[in-house]
Amino acid sequence: MNTIEIIHKKRDGQSLSKEEIEYLIQGYTNGSIPDYQIAAWAMAICFQGMNPQETANLTMAMVQSGDQIDLSAIKGIKVDKHSTGGVGDTTTLILGPLVAAAGVPVAKMSGRGLGHTGGTIDKLESIEGFSTELTTEEFLALVNEKKLAVGGQTANLTPADKKLYALRDVTATVESIPLIASSVMSKKIATGADAIVLDVKTGDGAFMKEEEDAIKLAKAMVEIGQLVGRNTIAVISDMSQPLGHAVGNALEVIEAIDTLKGVGPADLTELTLVLGSQMLLLAGRCQTVEEARALLEQCIEDGSALEKLKEMIQGQHGNPAQIDHPELLPQAREQIAVLAEEDGFIQQIEAEEIGLCAMKLGAGRETKDDQIDHAVGVVVHKKVGDAVKKGEPIATLHVNRVEEVPEVTKRLLQAVKINNQPVTPPKLIRCIVTASGMTKL
Amino acid sequence: MNTIEIIHKKRDGQSLSKEEIEYLIQGYTNGSIPDYQIAAWAMAICFQGMNPQETANLTMAMVQSGDQIDLSAIKGIKVDKHSTGGVGDTTTLILGPLVAAAGVPVAKMSGRGLGHTGGTIDKLESIEGFSTELTTEEFLALVNEKKLAVGGQTANLTPADKKLYALRDVTATVESIPLIASSVMSKKIATGADAIVLDVKTGDGAFMKEEEDAIKLAKAMVEIGQLVGRNTIAVISDMSQPLGHAVGNALEVIEAIDTLKGVGPADLTELTLVLGSQMLLLAGRCQTVEEARALLEQCIEDGSALEKLKEMIQGQHGNPAQIDHPELLPQAREQIAVLAEEDGFIQQIEAEEIGLCAMKLGAGRETKDDQIDHAVGVVVHKKVGDAVKKGEPIATLHVNRVEEVPEVTKRLLQAVKINNQPVTPPKLIRCIVTASGMTKL
Repeated sequence: MNTIEIIHKKRDGQSLSKEEIEYLIQGYTNGSIPDYQIAAWAMAICFQGMNPQETANLTMAMVQSGDQIDLSAIKGIKVDKHSTGGVGDTTTLILGPLVAAAGVPVAKMSGRGLGHTGGTIDKLESIEGFSTELTTEEFLALVNEKKLAVGGQTANLTPADKKLYALRDVTATVESIPLIASSVMSKKIATGADAIVLDVKTGDGAFMKEEEDAIKLAKAMVEIGQLVGRNTIAVISDMSQPLGHAVGNALEVIEAIDTLKGVGPADLTELTLVLGSQMLLLAGRCQTVEEARALLEQCIEDGSALEKLKEMIQGQHGNPAQIDHPELLPQAREQIAVLAEEDGFIQQIEAEEIGLCAMKLGAGRETKDDQIDHAVGVVVHKKVGDAVKKGEPIATLHVNRVEEVPEVTKRLLQAVKINNQPVTPPKLIRCIVTASGMTKL
Repeated sequence: MNTIEIIHKKRDGQSLSKEEIEYLIQGYTNGSIPDYQIAAWAMAICFQGMNPQETANLTMAMVQSGDQIDLSAIKGIKVDKHSTGGVGDTTTLILGPLVAAAGVPVAKMSGRGLGHTGGTIDKLESIEGFSTELTTEEFLALVNEKKLAVGGQTANLTPADKKLYALRDVTATVESIPLIASSVMSKKIATGADAIVLDVKTGDGAFMKEEEDAIKLAKAMVEIGQLVGRNTIAVISDMSQPLGHAVGNALEVIEAIDTLKGVGPADLTELTLVLGSQMLLLAGRCQTVEEARALLEQCIEDGSALEKLKEMIQGQHGNPAQIDHPELLPQAREQIAVLAEEDGFIQQIEAEEIGLCAMKLGAGRETKDDQIDHAVGVVVHKKVGDAVKKGEPIATLHVNRVEEVPEVTKRLLQAVKINNQPVTPPKLIRCIVTASGMTKL
């Protein structure tokens, strides 16, 4: 096989065979095909696209480029959930215990990553003693026994995806539906998921600003799932404002605890129930969405979901007392209220900018060597559509580095736009995409 | 400036500024911008193209990436000619002496290069003692005194083009009109041309198989010339069969001598007169094509063109006796006739394949370390449309490596297709493209 001919084929709009895609991905992973040929190929894909079968073949080639986690020792259908990212997205912290409490095993592999706040593992490390350093046997035993464990990604998972992702980042080839879809799906499949629920964000704070593009991406991922035998469902949800109120590590743990108690923010609770219901359906635990939702609501009401979080934390050497007493979690030295400068209605809360404010305070990493401050972050008290009075607190900054406060306050005030006319809040759940079609909600 | 943003702009179909193009080309030349970013950019250009101003800016950025030859010491307008390549193209060997005999200075910079036969320098080195190793002063003095010299390219000319060309070759980004046009024009401008006559080939043996594409390329190059102040004219000519009869180094020198004597092949003579007339017009030597053509015909008839070739060879330490006695040029050990296997009319002579036959016999280089055998090659006695009888020689192989004969004979017979119906010969000169428009011929 010849790399130049394969690039040419894609450039000319032809479909690539499974063997051709595997040849490129294997060669790229082992270094025999150089960056510049893959960069040209990726740009050709940006223009010519890939059909569903090509995208599925690319996904599996990336899965096979490295280790694959074997979850077969866990009984039942392993359902994983993935969110395409956003600001203040605490759903993973809530969904794990909630779905596990409903009897579905959750074997969560998470990362740290760069961003406005840390990844799920960083958030959980706000809890004293909590550790994801488990052997494979410990991890699998925990899931079988407690139905829930969170492991760190130590294996060499999808090295081809890591390499290709880094290359796309510096060659203006990030925005390509088949490349994004195969990247997401390869990671989920490599970590052993039998079925996948996707939360595809749309709006200003999301990668897919337009709902139409989010739907295209969702369809591409659902199609991959269908072609590779992993039942996949995608929920398109709003990320035009931050989800919930908190953006920060310990702050999001507190918000997760509140939600598991049934007193969390309405949007976060709703999205969690929608995603969780789909997970129960895919796991075969329930037959209808209504039944699944009722079961999840019951797990919140009877305290079993919160109890499951405590069980997991105890199983992973964390201090469960901090769940009953969230005031024991890391606290920032100062809490500074940001006050509204006029009367009106919240017209917009720029999710991306709120995330950057939290990062500025130390909640996230800009480079992978940065230290995360678990205590700090931003809590936004308002949602789009809410009325606001001049002088009323619209947000609270949780701060250890006070020197950042003036700039963060200024940016936050600019990010929260106030209008003198009433504003209609955005719709949270837009639609659900399954192998059999799309349901607008 | 940011490389990723510039690639993105081109990917999204926007035009790049002069500064952005210079930033990329300078960075690529000095190594601060890596191959993979330029590969992605080149692929984006394949899809989004470049407007005439961008193409001109790219051309000049490549000219400025290295040395530029200063021909200002030569009096008059320096007109250069470039052919986009083909098989058996001996025009440069003929045009130099012919145009110089008509009083226009020809300062020819040539290369060796890979291909079916050597480059112009390799062909001239068939002549005993001939050397292109001239100092700049010697070269300029020869052109001023004799009106003609052929120099080798020793300066660091258009390094950006060399680097980009090599990269395009391995990333399936060769076929792009603005990238091809800027590559050709940058080399001509760097070697000091004031005005340029382009011979753009079309047909099976050419890079541009379709006349329509050849015209697009011609227009792009003429537009560059107009925008950078180098008067440029392009002739679109047929390369569906080899030009002339000979494909080989000494064999083409002999054909050039014949043509300068007025007894060369009709197609080669005609193309030379058409290109030469355009050169005289651009040099301001004549006012009309008719006047220019008459002057060139006179230089052939009165022997001054042939005399000019001898003068040049003498000036560059070659043996001019070989021009009067071409039988003194290197001769292959064996001449083997290839006989027609049926009666009929020549329907097709696959130019590319005839070139490969000559290369197989040793006339060209596959890699840059290969030695050229000046004596060997192929002479095809027929042109498309000619009648042929079974057993009649259609070609003669000039051979030193007899072990290649069976395969070359077989390939040559397959490359020359014979039909039992009369065949209309292809039109040699298709059209002429100038800044003021296109003339179909």
